[in-house]
Amino acid sequence: MVETIQWTEAGVVMIDQTRLPLEEEYVTCRTYEEVADAIRGMVIRGAPAIGVAAAMGVALGVLQASGQQLDREMETICGALAGTRPTAVNLFWAIERMKRLYASVRGQPIAEIRRRLVEEALAVRQEDIAINRAIGRNGAALVPDHKTVLTHCNAGALATAGYGTALGVVRAAIESGKQVDVFADETRPFLQGARLTVWELQHDGIPVTLITDNMAGHFLKSGRIGCVVVGADRIAANGDVANKIGTYTVAVLAKENRVPFFVAAPISTLDLTLASGGQIPIEQRAASEVTHVFGRQVAPPDTAVENPAFDVTPSRYVGAIITERGVARAPYEESLRKLAS
Amino acid sequence: MVETIQWTEAGVVMIDQTRLPLEEEYVTCRTYEEVADAIRGMVIRGAPAIGVAAAMGVALGVLQASGQQLDREMETICGALAGTRPTAVNLFWAIERMKRLYASVRGQPIAEIRRRLVEEALAVRQEDIAINRAIGRNGAALVPDHKTVLTHCNAGALATAGYGTALGVVRAAIESGKQVDVFADETRPFLQGARLTVWELQHDGIPVTLITDNMAGHFLKSGRIGCVVVGADRIAANGDVANKIGTYTVAVLAKENRVPFFVAAPISTLDLTLASGGQIPIEQRAASEVTHVFGRQVAPPDTAVENPAFDVTPSRYVGAIITERGVARAPYEESLRKLAS
Repeated sequence: MVETIQWTEAGVVMIDQTRLPLEEEYVTCRTYEEVADAIRGMVIRGAPAIGVAAAMGVALGVLQASGQQLDREMETICGALAGTRPTAVNLFWAIERMKRLYASVRGQPIAEIRRRLVEEALAVRQEDIAINRAIGRNGAALVPDHKTVLTHCNAGALATAGYGTALGVVRAAIESGKQVDVFADETRPFLQGARLTVWELQHDGIPVTLITDNMAGHFLKSGRIGCVVVGADRIAANGDVANKIGTYTVAVLAKENRVPFFVAAPISTLDLTLASGGQIPIEQRAASEVTHVFGRQVAPPDTAVENPAFDVTPSRYVGAIITERGVARAPYEESLRKLAS
Repeated sequence: MVETIQWTEAGVVMIDQTRLPLEEEYVTCRTYEEVADAIRGMVIRGAPAIGVAAAMGVALGVLQASGQQLDREMETICGALAGTRPTAVNLFWAIERMKRLYASVRGQPIAEIRRRLVEEALAVRQEDIAINRAIGRNGAALVPDHKTVLTHCNAGALATAGYGTALGVVRAAIESGKQVDVFADETRPFLQGARLTVWELQHDGIPVTLITDNMAGHFLKSGRIGCVVVGADRIAANGDVANKIGTYTVAVLAKENRVPFFVAAPISTLDLTLASGGQIPIEQRAASEVTHVFGRQVAPPDTAVENPAFDVTPSRYVGAIITERGVARAPYEESLRKLAS
């Protein structure tokens, strides 16, 4: 299996997700600023993977800090990484975790601080893989056998340190003996479905069929889709889910056609400080992502564009939220609080 | 305004809709086979425009026929044109109309037959523009003032001989003094929204914002969309509507968010021989349309693809069908039969 992100002597190495699937290139980020740029530019994307990248970015920054005013340098590093993307809460969760670790070792020799921060970043990565395997185990039972799983965007190995959340559920269902195939929405504008989900499922020999986003309704109506499984970028206390733009559309169409709609995400994606999804900040991205497709201009010059990168799916459309600690069902205020505590 | 399709001394001239908006090129079809290729290859597309092209193709074919066995030659010409695309009923309607005209002049001198067929094809074109203006007049009142109209695909001047069906309603609403702007779904895989709708509305100075197909739900939920207006490729007796893939998705999301969903189409789009939309043949197109975007490869080699070009929106999602003879409402069995007779 491909490695999404790794800590090496040379720096933080990521597979370049802006260039897949036509080129399999790896980028080495040698400074925390380069890690921040990679997150902002979507060289790495997917909420859990962004969390791992941020943790490694903090460790890399402190490794290279002068150490003269470490508290202040730590603030600068964390601020730069936190300013990259606003929606995925895993980014802030990972930075907070690194800050807590720092607070616990503050005052110790700089070499020790550095060692512990690197160790913590590696732990974040390692735990993420284990968490995804647990999500997969918890979700596998929900996947109907001999049917198609519809997914949106890429919540796979490439969106995490490995195995994937939504695609982890698919992998675990197949490992448990179920026969399922996957329909992948291409997921404009960034084409995570066409470029990443198809690519990583082909790698694993899992049958996958690519459709454009606007075909999802047609196939949900057709009866061949057994369930929808997607990831999440942030989940509010009431179970509202921010995820890649278009997720709300799929959720409404699933409900209309009585197809179960599941969200697979680690506990670190929960943001219980927000009562509902309306409070989740939604990133607006550049118009060129819409007027161009993978570099090719498709719209007239000076076309006005809206480009929200995420939408919010109200929890009434969500059949279950699959986490590493278990499966939450409505009413989510209770079930999520219970899982989080 | 741009001319979608014209009859000239040199042949049938069409603006090449596979190359817009980056290149404004015109194709001259010098034989009926070239007209058939242009329809199949989507140089011209949109149900009413396809009807006009087919009528001109028949006229061109008979103009160039040997005339030795005209009945048989007429059959060959009509068969070739009818075999190009299966879903839009206007294609078959136009061919039937040319056949009826032929039957009425059969036996007359060949020069007279040719003159009458060319005249009929020109009439189909001219009537289409008048029909679209009438659709616009009938639909303008339904468009909420000071709101955004969402449209899918291109049901504009480029999908017709001029003025447009869905975009004709928008144009007429604006001509009647209403202040509306348009949100255009890009409409993968062929990108009729990004490439054609944006282009022709910019030409007319009508404010238009481009979104990806999977953003439609987000904006329908936001409250800014006053109504949805789309065209149609075939409408069954019960009001079920076949239209560009993704229309069903928009219709479901509109209903879920209590936004009126309107279909604008000429009477020639009605197929009262079909009881319901389940009987409408849905064209499957090449995988390369999905794996490539406007020529740019976006998916891995050998990606499995589904590519239905149309979907069927059940009539329960359709708030009104706007025709040149008036506005049909549910129950559509009655209202459509009345308008058609």
